[in-house]
Amino acid sequence: MAGKAKAVTLATVAQTAGVSLATASKALNGKTVVSAATRRRVEEAARTLGFVPNHFAKALNSATTGVIGLLTADLANRFVLPILSGVENTLGVESTSIILTDARRDPIRERHQIATLLGRKVDGIIVVGHSDDARPSLAELLPVGATYAFAPSTSTADASYLSDNYEGARLAIDHLVEGGRRSIAVLTGDPTYNAAKERLEGAVRAARRHGLEIVGPANAYGDWSEEWGRYGAESLLQGRDEFDAVFCANDQIARGVVDVLRDYGREVPHDVAVVGFDNWELYSSHSRPPITTIDMNLEEVGRLAALGLAAAIAGEPPSGITRVAPRLVPRASTAGSKQ
Amino acid sequence: MAGKAKAVTLATVAQTAGVSLATASKALNGKTVVSAATRRRVEEAARTLGFVPNHFAKALNSATTGVIGLLTADLANRFVLPILSGVENTLGVESTSIILTDARRDPIRERHQIATLLGRKVDGIIVVGHSDDARPSLAELLPVGATYAFAPSTSTADASYLSDNYEGARLAIDHLVEGGRRSIAVLTGDPTYNAAKERLEGAVRAARRHGLEIVGPANAYGDWSEEWGRYGAESLLQGRDEFDAVFCANDQIARGVVDVLRDYGREVPHDVAVVGFDNWELYSSHSRPPITTIDMNLEEVGRLAALGLAAAIAGEPPSGITRVAPRLVPRASTAGSKQ
Repeated sequence: MAGKAKAVTLATVAQTAGVSLATASKALNGKTVVSAATRRRVEEAARTLGFVPNHFAKALNSATTGVIGLLTADLANRFVLPILSGVENTLGVESTSIILTDARRDPIRERHQIATLLGRKVDGIIVVGHSDDARPSLAELLPVGATYAFAPSTSTADASYLSDNYEGARLAIDHLVEGGRRSIAVLTGDPTYNAAKERLEGAVRAARRHGLEIVGPANAYGDWSEEWGRYGAESLLQGRDEFDAVFCANDQIARGVVDVLRDYGREVPHDVAVVGFDNWELYSSHSRPPITTIDMNLEEVGRLAALGLAAAIAGEPPSGITRVAPRLVPRASTAGSKQ
Repeated sequence: MAGKAKAVTLATVAQTAGVSLATASKALNGKTVVSAATRRRVEEAARTLGFVPNHFAKALNSATTGVIGLLTADLANRFVLPILSGVENTLGVESTSIILTDARRDPIRERHQIATLLGRKVDGIIVVGHSDDARPSLAELLPVGATYAFAPSTSTADASYLSDNYEGARLAIDHLVEGGRRSIAVLTGDPTYNAAKERLEGAVRAARRHGLEIVGPANAYGDWSEEWGRYGAESLLQGRDEFDAVFCANDQIARGVVDVLRDYGREVPHDVAVVGFDNWELYSSHSRPPITTIDMNLEEVGRLAALGLAAAIAGEPPSGITRVAPRLVPRASTAGSKQ
């Protein structure tokens, strides 16, 4: 710890952010009654001042080191960064430090890193997977608390946090139906991934709730690439089903679809609306047109995994799978209503 | 440290990798006489066994904690990840732990994080910038050693490591000229970035070495987006200069160029060859056609910054700016020779 600086109170945070004590408290506890802008302001003030919320302060008794381990499966994976950001942002700068490790998908390397983290006397470990497929529990190896982000633990005794693919697909389908679309096709990803299955299933269920069936080929699986999006779009154009919308299980597939529709003179969104998934912003917001997508809220996944770990360190370990609600990011590819 | 495991020797690493002691040594010291495949195998063996090279072992005397700080300016920046990877990969898993921080481009937050890192008694700090523009030295604040990765320190007394934009531009132009291109246009990025200036200047210089002048508008600056690439390509098509190649200062610009050339029926690479920059692989390798690009070798930047810090911790602090040579990644957008 950086010396014993005077503890920053919630009142100071509220004053700095220019909000009431109650609002500051709600904002920092993730209550949705507070506007996103206000919450950001309060969080910013808390960060700048080095405010340590109670649940962390509680954990900081003499038995703890204030260091946690972050065991990532694959740092090269772009989904890991927003989770790291969420974790880093949630822990008080002065109260908790994060030791970063990268197992590079190698179980032997992971064992070494766990040993090193335990040797460093970490208070707990956040395990960050490289996809949302389940991974083996580390409970038997760990004398300290752990939470799992993105890839859930296979054991429900562990606390796991991941984004809700079903809910993401529902948001996409509801958005398309609200825009007047009735003939929605789906192109999903690699069938060996949970995400590909859940996004497809979620879309089928959501369509049925509107009395609709998904159009196009029943087997909508491919891989996660633009090439598959282009191939899938050509198949749809050559198929016998009319379609006025395509829901794609990631932004690359959606990009391939948009590009091919353009080649064939089908106007997006006028003739066909397109929704992607993942909100890979630098990528999906610069296509012609920019693509409406579903954001997995991975920063929130990281935030909850950090709060869950803090609870575990404080002696109240959470358990079970928590699915974080994604959010719709509307862009031009679904703008305006049909008719 | 995870107990006092028996020290792993280089001989064990060599044996595990199935190479001679000399080859293992050369591979781990980055000598290029060793093939990439062999080097990977040796590095893999070293990692798996938890081998600690001498320069780190030397630093691990009783006065050190074996913990270093990684002070990143912006974790959300995609250029930061390969640098983190390079650092993480270079430090022995069991000898050194990395505490990760994210200043989110906020100098006040950065000060807090430095105080926390020093409170944790880190042996040194690697400062990772968010662009390759210079940043203020932290030397006066730090009682421990530091090296700078990506963004160099403004002080040449510090040791900074970054990718060589001039050399990257030279690789691109030489590759185009070798492919028979003589009329090369350049579209660079946002003029407030060093990278935009250096990549343009490097291209102009390299072309002159071949007795060529860059064609198209003299002011080739725009921003870093696909939109600018599309606009720039349309301007070139409507301009009076013939061109058979476009060198773009990043992959997004190149993507915009390739897409517009396609719209106008100009075949890539037959009519116009295109080279991008950054090797944002998931992005540039799936366009029509996949785009030849320059890889900044940011993992190597991270590796050198880690080795530099190890030297500083061992009492031999390096100084000055080290520019890492990028590498050409050839893809279909420049395939085959003209004529």
